[in-house]
Amino acid sequence: MRIFYDDAQRTHAPARELHNGAFAAYAETPARLDAILKAVGPTETPADRGEAPILAVHDAAYIAFLKDAPRLWQEAGRSGDAIPYAFPIRGRRPLRLDRVDALLGAHAFDATTPITADTWRSAYASAQSALAATQAVLDGERAAFALCRPPGHHAGADYCGGYCHLNVAAIAAQAARDAGVERVAILDIDYHHGNGTQDIFYARGDVFYASVHADPKRDYPFYWGHADETGEGPGLGTTLNLPLPHGTTRDAFRAAQAQALERIAAFDPGLLVVSFGADTWEGDPISQFALTTPDYAVLASDIAARGWPTVIVMEGGYAVNALGHNVLSFLAGF
Amino acid sequence: MRIFYDDAQRTHAPARELHNGAFAAYAETPARLDAILKAVGPTETPADRGEAPILAVHDAAYIAFLKDAPRLWQEAGRSGDAIPYAFPIRGRRPLRLDRVDALLGAHAFDATTPITADTWRSAYASAQSALAATQAVLDGERAAFALCRPPGHHAGADYCGGYCHLNVAAIAAQAARDAGVERVAILDIDYHHGNGTQDIFYARGDVFYASVHADPKRDYPFYWGHADETGEGPGLGTTLNLPLPHGTTRDAFRAAQAQALERIAAFDPGLLVVSFGADTWEGDPISQFALTTPDYAVLASDIAARGWPTVIVMEGGYAVNALGHNVLSFLAGF
Repeated sequence: MRIFYDDAQRTHAPARELHNGAFAAYAETPARLDAILKAVGPTETPADRGEAPILAVHDAAYIAFLKDAPRLWQEAGRSGDAIPYAFPIRGRRPLRLDRVDALLGAHAFDATTPITADTWRSAYASAQSALAATQAVLDGERAAFALCRPPGHHAGADYCGGYCHLNVAAIAAQAARDAGVERVAILDIDYHHGNGTQDIFYARGDVFYASVHADPKRDYPFYWGHADETGEGPGLGTTLNLPLPHGTTRDAFRAAQAQALERIAAFDPGLLVVSFGADTWEGDPISQFALTTPDYAVLASDIAARGWPTVIVMEGGYAVNALGHNVLSFLAGF
Repeated sequence: MRIFYDDAQRTHAPARELHNGAFAAYAETPARLDAILKAVGPTETPADRGEAPILAVHDAAYIAFLKDAPRLWQEAGRSGDAIPYAFPIRGRRPLRLDRVDALLGAHAFDATTPITADTWRSAYASAQSALAATQAVLDGERAAFALCRPPGHHAGADYCGGYCHLNVAAIAAQAARDAGVERVAILDIDYHHGNGTQDIFYARGDVFYASVHADPKRDYPFYWGHADETGEGPGLGTTLNLPLPHGTTRDAFRAAQAQALERIAAFDPGLLVVSFGADTWEGDPISQFALTTPDYAVLASDIAARGWPTVIVMEGGYAVNALGHNVLSFLAGF
């Protein structure tokens, strides 16, 4: 399977994140890339397809913010990474604001996703990897893997959060749509719900979003991913959320994934994007499912059996020592 | 002038706040009370009027959260004060959530307002001081001062933020309404916009909210307090925002206050609540106006000249060494 990755993706490396009321080491590290690269072997550097496919998903003001925030932070006399501390409460209107803190809070839904001087460059490269994998599949590959990092599925059209800045799965899906694929499906099997992906396509009938994840009543991102969220307007019925309890093992996860694949099959997509997270693994430091390394091959095999041209994008997974094996198991299972 | 204050108000004492990307000492300290008490002389302990007047302003679920959060935080295995890190982005629906972090984010608009084991007790006492001052005025006093702390004007019906948990000005105004005063006005002359007070009365025509404050394009709370916010529905026209630039001195502030008083006079209130902050002082460590200590007597005198029965509640002011003098100047000017 062709694998796309760009060294620029490792430049985003925040020092710390707010975690449980105190600062902790940032969990979404460049070392995650090393672990996966070591396991999966040679990769291709993606071509640069520019900003247009990113702007097909994200608001221009948000992209400008991602580029400007480090400079604004520095101009405000701050050291360290830019992190927000104030947020517009539910229902606040969009506003034109000047101060970096106001912009940070307006373009984020958590205080755990710092923006560094290299964030834009790194996220841009991650998006290019997703676009290259998508192009490979559009050109006839059965499947391709975008070794994305930073990940993407928590990022919405105009906000970051959950270690995510650009929604690589959404950018891949939109690129496929713009290349003429009429119906695209996204299967999200990261431990966490992909709130950004859901938000981006919530009112659209041409992209199906299905997610198997930890119940947001107790797990991040809390405010999205509940079973009764099923889309709206033309998108009503093209969002499927399957929350699962702590301790979930292979059989229950596989059954939920099968349910998602059935619904996707009924949607009859021309292309599938898989948001793959390995944080469902039993030893993940921030998650509470109990999948084993061989389980990933089984899950991948179930997906491959459907026969859809498939773009796999990397999302979470924070047990660095096991990450390479888990990703390899998934890719091999395909 | 009768002054109300309860020693329980000093029990809320968070260790630190998130400030400009790092933790800093919490600025809204019990030492603020000592400074004011030393300057203003004897106070009265308020009677306990119970929770009903608080629940007349705040949602029951929010009040339950303020009480429960410290226990939930401890049960989650956390040490230190409870602070939120994830927030529902604009437009998210209300949800029933279990985890303390989800509740914190759903009931806050910033990451700078920790909840301690004593927060409820302290905020409750602060609200009782506001209620006692209101009752004194309803009973015939020309004016009374509630030495509130924690302050209140950033707290909405269901959220905390900006060092505020219970909106003492709103609780006072609502108590006056419930005692039969047909029209109540709130004049907010803290350096920061009182977003919580505005939110609580935004759609109501019986309470006028006027605020003179630093332009939220550059100053906290950013997402509220812009000049074009004038109320909605039955409250259209009963919100007045007068943002002023950094460096504002007495004459400009006084002129804006005069404009607010004119509008309030046209509203013809039966009672006035003044949200008084001394963070407009030239030496305030977190603010950028340039009022002097004698200026507060002038501002108070202008307000007093209107003749409305007036409840003064304490909001911000973080230059502890000058705080007593500034408050005394204001009260003496009345």
